[in-house]
Amino acid sequence: MLQLDQLSLNIPDTTKPRVVVIGGGFGAVNLTKNLPSDQFQVVMLSKQNYHGFWPLLYQVATAGLEPESIGEPIRKLFDDHSDFHFRFVRVTGIDPVAKTVSTLIGSVRYDYLVIATGTKSNYFGNKEIEQNAFGLKHLTDAVNLRSQLLQSFEQANLTQDPALRQGLLNIVIAGAGPTGVELAGSLAEMRQHVLPKDYPNLDFRQMNIYLVDGLDRVLPPMSPEASQHAHGYLLKLGVNIKLNKLVDSYDGTTVRFKDGEEIPTQTLVWAAGVTGATIEGLPAETVERGRYLVNDFNQILGYTDIFAIGDVAVMKSDKWPKGHPQVAQPAIQQGTLLAENLVRQRRNEAWKHFDYFDKGSLAIVGRARAVADLPGKHTLSGFIAWIAWLFVHIYYLVGFRNKLIVLTNWAYRLFTYQRGTRIIIQPYINDHDKVGQEFARQQAID
Amino acid sequence: MLQLDQLSLNIPDTTKPRVVVIGGGFGAVNLTKNLPSDQFQVVMLSKQNYHGFWPLLYQVATAGLEPESIGEPIRKLFDDHSDFHFRFVRVTGIDPVAKTVSTLIGSVRYDYLVIATGTKSNYFGNKEIEQNAFGLKHLTDAVNLRSQLLQSFEQANLTQDPALRQGLLNIVIAGAGPTGVELAGSLAEMRQHVLPKDYPNLDFRQMNIYLVDGLDRVLPPMSPEASQHAHGYLLKLGVNIKLNKLVDSYDGTTVRFKDGEEIPTQTLVWAAGVTGATIEGLPAETVERGRYLVNDFNQILGYTDIFAIGDVAVMKSDKWPKGHPQVAQPAIQQGTLLAENLVRQRRNEAWKHFDYFDKGSLAIVGRARAVADLPGKHTLSGFIAWIAWLFVHIYYLVGFRNKLIVLTNWAYRLFTYQRGTRIIIQPYINDHDKVGQEFARQQAID
Repeated sequence: MLQLDQLSLNIPDTTKPRVVVIGGGFGAVNLTKNLPSDQFQVVMLSKQNYHGFWPLLYQVATAGLEPESIGEPIRKLFDDHSDFHFRFVRVTGIDPVAKTVSTLIGSVRYDYLVIATGTKSNYFGNKEIEQNAFGLKHLTDAVNLRSQLLQSFEQANLTQDPALRQGLLNIVIAGAGPTGVELAGSLAEMRQHVLPKDYPNLDFRQMNIYLVDGLDRVLPPMSPEASQHAHGYLLKLGVNIKLNKLVDSYDGTTVRFKDGEEIPTQTLVWAAGVTGATIEGLPAETVERGRYLVNDFNQILGYTDIFAIGDVAVMKSDKWPKGHPQVAQPAIQQGTLLAENLVRQRRNEAWKHFDYFDKGSLAIVGRARAVADLPGKHTLSGFIAWIAWLFVHIYYLVGFRNKLIVLTNWAYRLFTYQRGTRIIIQPYINDHDKVGQEFARQQAID
Repeated sequence: MLQLDQLSLNIPDTTKPRVVVIGGGFGAVNLTKNLPSDQFQVVMLSKQNYHGFWPLLYQVATAGLEPESIGEPIRKLFDDHSDFHFRFVRVTGIDPVAKTVSTLIGSVRYDYLVIATGTKSNYFGNKEIEQNAFGLKHLTDAVNLRSQLLQSFEQANLTQDPALRQGLLNIVIAGAGPTGVELAGSLAEMRQHVLPKDYPNLDFRQMNIYLVDGLDRVLPPMSPEASQHAHGYLLKLGVNIKLNKLVDSYDGTTVRFKDGEEIPTQTLVWAAGVTGATIEGLPAETVERGRYLVNDFNQILGYTDIFAIGDVAVMKSDKWPKGHPQVAQPAIQQGTLLAENLVRQRRNEAWKHFDYFDKGSLAIVGRARAVADLPGKHTLSGFIAWIAWLFVHIYYLVGFRNKLIVLTNWAYRLFTYQRGTRIIIQPYINDHDKVGQEFARQQAID
């Protein structure tokens, strides 16, 4: 049995400034890509060995894509960087005085520290929901949700008890942001085109897809026009939309809402909120509602050598008084600019202030319909927005191979309505993982 | 929490003869495909909801293919059959007197019963090896082995202890049949082309791939010429071949052989033997060395309405005194012929005797080299055998989509030497799987 004390971070010494990056998402990857190996040593610490393209996670959960096609190995992304050091390890704390980051297996000194840890699901302190609901933040969540959905249909097919069958066929999605809307649309398409063929004995008019939000419209971060179009598409697909509605409790069998309504369901998907994945060690005043307060150089309040980028940061400005939306673009742009500024520092040049270039936002609803808010207050909808969605996603999907795989899958689905990946990979609980067991257990602590 | 007694098999009544098929492999699928829906009701009982293309399983374990690309949902395969009933459930026994098959959730009557359960790993009663070694029989095994290999490299990168590092970098494969040989070759290619770029700090001359067999040559089921060529290719790839060597014990850290030799390793892959996955209920004399004795109609000894096809059956003949090789072709051909005979039965026509058409056998060794035994004692080797291997595997891979995905992956790898799927999907241990938990636990009992 491997002991944690047999491991150490094992980072080679260097005379170059060392940038320690925590995380492997859009911000971290775009920062690293733009830091020249001859000027900086980069140490990336992450709990996942891949860069996930999270905007397509709902497709994995609904059997449209393989998990591998939205995950790109981080080591592969940077195999041409000569002074890049990836460490597959959970960070446990920051010591801004000693200028070190501690992990499960030792600590590392930094010259610059960049926190790019993104978000985690926010259950607002409700442990019961946290335990019983399905999250949708990681590849394992998506694979697990896919198994859960398919097993529910299998079991609905095996019961004569109408109440149990209804609970198996009801799906409740809490949160009508892009994830919730895209998931609901995708499930509705499955219900229409795939499931009746797969389960001829089941009556899928009994399958209800509830999309619930505490606010008064779907896609609250988008324009009212986009919300309205999306709402219409969802209704057309037969999604039950419930607005101004808050989940009170979920025991694994019945969702209870604050207004007293109850829905029996074996599957509650929690897409209702996220909070920044902050790390122990910085003073409380650096964090506001789960996100690090940063200036327009992405420096965390009170520090010049500690940065936060992407979703875990909140950068307030006149134009964005509540900070930027928690989507990929701010992370990408902040990572890229921070790299440029660190290079400027080496040259003793003045730093550039961050100015968010809003490329608009997009959400897909079902098979060939989407809504898009373009810069300049234009809203697109329908097929043309869907084409835009397709191009943007293919364009930003990292890795040549993945683009091909994803395109192949999409073309196949577009013409056949089929979904090839609806296989159940059973949760695998065993004694095998000798090397990683304690390590993995510790990694999984959130 | 779902109770098993809330579920039942729920098979619709019929006046047609009912064929109950246990399993979802090559035999079961080819039988079902050839049974006309207007003449038979088919009930398929399987612990997996997909048909796995097991000859490519080693590719999933070595990050060459996604698990989804070698698994085709069974319901999708037969969605055009009007009287086909898939049930995702473990079979617990057979009652040949009552003519019923029992499962976790009730029993079903059969007119014809076809056992097509294939094989399971044979640890020859060694519980310690069973617990500590990695099998390679299911998709979950392959995903788990992939995670184990990648985590071992990650951790070898994190230790300064030379003994520990060596144990992490040694890989021992017990069994030099096609699975062992193909896995060893694929790992050797990874070591040469992928890993040194991913882990620049590790010295991969330290990574040893041991391929061990109790017999005196690799690929014992193939011709001596094929064995000799494969042996040469493996040596060229730097695989350590150890023949006439039996594993005695494995505690998870060190493999001990019967001759006293020891190899420290965190990863022992068990490809050393399989045994038929027989089911409780038939008399002991129907089973010989783990396989059902069948006549050339695939009827199990003493029965006219119970059949075994594929790997779980042993059909002895003058030409094949020990039965057919346990590969896909006999299963495919037996399934197809049995369907034809059942149709003949309806027409009161005489049954056809099974005559195995040996199409030859193939094994791939590394990137563009293979060996093939063709019918008529010809042996192919090298690039031309590899091309043959490629065509045969693409041809038999079920499903249009999968062929495209697999081809895309192969083309990508052939030209770039890359492997896109080297992501670690952590074993997922949680409380989520409310619906399936007890069910899954019971399903997993072997």
